[in-house]
Amino acid sequence: MTPAVPAPAVGDLSPLDHAGHRDRLRGRLADLGADAVLVTAPSDVRWLTGFAGSNGTVLLGADPDADLLITDGRYRERVRDLALPHVETARRVPEVLADLGPVRLAVDAEHLTLAAGERLRAALSDGATLVTASSPCAWLRVEKDAAEVARLAAACAITAAALAWLGEQPVGGVTERDLARALEARFLALGADGVAFPTIVAAGVNGASPHHEPTARPVALGELVTVDCGAEVDGYRADMTRTLAAGPVTGRMAEVHAVVEAANAAGRAAAVNGATVGEVDAAARGVVTEAGYGEAFVHPTGHGVGLDVHEAPLVAAGGTATLCPGTTVTVEPGIYLPGVGGARVEDTLAVGADATEVLTVMDRRPLGA
Amino acid sequence: MTPAVPAPAVGDLSPLDHAGHRDRLRGRLADLGADAVLVTAPSDVRWLTGFAGSNGTVLLGADPDADLLITDGRYRERVRDLALPHVETARRVPEVLADLGPVRLAVDAEHLTLAAGERLRAALSDGATLVTASSPCAWLRVEKDAAEVARLAAACAITAAALAWLGEQPVGGVTERDLARALEARFLALGADGVAFPTIVAAGVNGASPHHEPTARPVALGELVTVDCGAEVDGYRADMTRTLAAGPVTGRMAEVHAVVEAANAAGRAAAVNGATVGEVDAAARGVVTEAGYGEAFVHPTGHGVGLDVHEAPLVAAGGTATLCPGTTVTVEPGIYLPGVGGARVEDTLAVGADATEVLTVMDRRPLGA
Repeated sequence: MTPAVPAPAVGDLSPLDHAGHRDRLRGRLADLGADAVLVTAPSDVRWLTGFAGSNGTVLLGADPDADLLITDGRYRERVRDLALPHVETARRVPEVLADLGPVRLAVDAEHLTLAAGERLRAALSDGATLVTASSPCAWLRVEKDAAEVARLAAACAITAAALAWLGEQPVGGVTERDLARALEARFLALGADGVAFPTIVAAGVNGASPHHEPTARPVALGELVTVDCGAEVDGYRADMTRTLAAGPVTGRMAEVHAVVEAANAAGRAAAVNGATVGEVDAAARGVVTEAGYGEAFVHPTGHGVGLDVHEAPLVAAGGTATLCPGTTVTVEPGIYLPGVGGARVEDTLAVGADATEVLTVMDRRPLGA
Repeated sequence: MTPAVPAPAVGDLSPLDHAGHRDRLRGRLADLGADAVLVTAPSDVRWLTGFAGSNGTVLLGADPDADLLITDGRYRERVRDLALPHVETARRVPEVLADLGPVRLAVDAEHLTLAAGERLRAALSDGATLVTASSPCAWLRVEKDAAEVARLAAACAITAAALAWLGEQPVGGVTERDLARALEARFLALGADGVAFPTIVAAGVNGASPHHEPTARPVALGELVTVDCGAEVDGYRADMTRTLAAGPVTGRMAEVHAVVEAANAAGRAAAVNGATVGEVDAAARGVVTEAGYGEAFVHPTGHGVGLDVHEAPLVAAGGTATLCPGTTVTVEPGIYLPGVGGARVEDTLAVGADATEVLTVMDRRPLGA
């Protein structure tokens, strides 16, 4: 439990502005063509209220004093500290809706299931109607405020510190799974609240698989090892990839790694306030294509990251969404050669008005140096 | 990374029978009134194929040689090892459905979203129809085979070993969060593939909250500490709670703990082949009610556990589902006293034809002894 490198400070963060988030969603009611909105996706519920339990739904209309979180008796004590006008732990969502009157109620069509939709429809009082909306908070969450970015930065700092530590270890002969476990234990020792997603460790030929699940295969000397991982702090999830080396790497894989590093740098340079996500993708992809590996870069360049490890905006070819202050995205070009191996280098960035900050700072030593 | 207690053996497990699982679902097609079924819930997809990526859908009809997993290019390499007739990584689900012809296609109404349902409906070829089904694999998954129970047993053994280790540590003065982190790191060191769900550590008055999120509050001497946690092995998720003591506990909380222990024992004794879940709930709840704490036991007695930490059957009052060989359920009575504290004792059980096995075996020492 005693970290060998200093743990980044994760305390003393300014509070999250949940009431402000709710007001931003309230401002969208007219756009949604609704009098009220029912929010069901867990990360949206957390963004609006701070509540992170397994059962939570937010009902929000024009009056901020009527904002309501609906959960159940297991969370009766835990919700006492939430700064929310109303919390319901006794009645379930359909019972609450039955009392709502003849409103137009927006629901999240990208989260609500067919069965839940039917149950809500049956519960609505006379004259009330359901209006489908597509992820009503997604684009609001793209513009993160300083308190949110600070949490993501803390998660990224822990992730980078743990990866730097792993980079100092002799990885030759160690299995992919043991490397993944050691790294995840390091996140916790450094003060993370959890692991953002299952760690990917892909050695040698397994590096050809972008989403490889760690196996009992030991790392051999001279191999590349792709490590894609993230710590979680107060709900915010880091996402970072480094391709490490078990001893000096030469030949084609050294070249592949150099191309990916250059593509990552080009993508980072393009990710500025006002740029489109398509421009960021083109900057990173152009370097890979120019080097002759365009066909081997089989996924988009990046994605938004925050309370969800994958959230808006997707950083993909042709994308027209614009980066703005508070947008946090990954830039993660990769080259995957079936039967040979692969490499990926990924950073999480926070776009600012005048500059973009790399949140996953770690020394970039030459492979095997 | 070196465990102080012997790690349970998690290797050498017999392989999972994914083809057998698919045949069991195939046997339900007539019941579903469908020619084929589209399975979208990630734990169902894993149960049918072994695939655990973030994007997977199974299409299954009458012909076993036509079984298909649909994912994307990121998983191209990882799916090579799956024993499956067909894997699609290029086309997306709607494109696959467009070629399906005039079938009756069952979809999971408890998982498919309203938006995804609309996209599928629009993609279906002429004459094809969608049939809604409710969690088509849920009740099949209740009857686990030996390979599945072995994985859950391995996850439970790691969990129990880690909790036994925590019980030997001096917990007084340590924060809830640090206890949770130390326990989760212990799971990984003992060979777990991951943490089954966010660990609950609730000390003193926080024990009144069944789903308390660990805080920076240190444990005081003489307090109860409820620890609810689980390791994950090959996708199977343990679930276990012990209420530990920071030094000797006396008075009312000692009595509360004794009642919960007795209720847990009564629930375990009732959880036999052929019993209904309602009978198990009644056995545990009866002990709590008899002791005068019935109002303070605010949740069902337990739930099924496996690839999902909460799955069928729910062990609740009045439930008529019957325990059968291969059913794995928790028994977790609790007493929660707002402003005072609480206690819960939870085991994961595997029902057999002639006997029920407790998978979460740990010495039950008297509090503070």
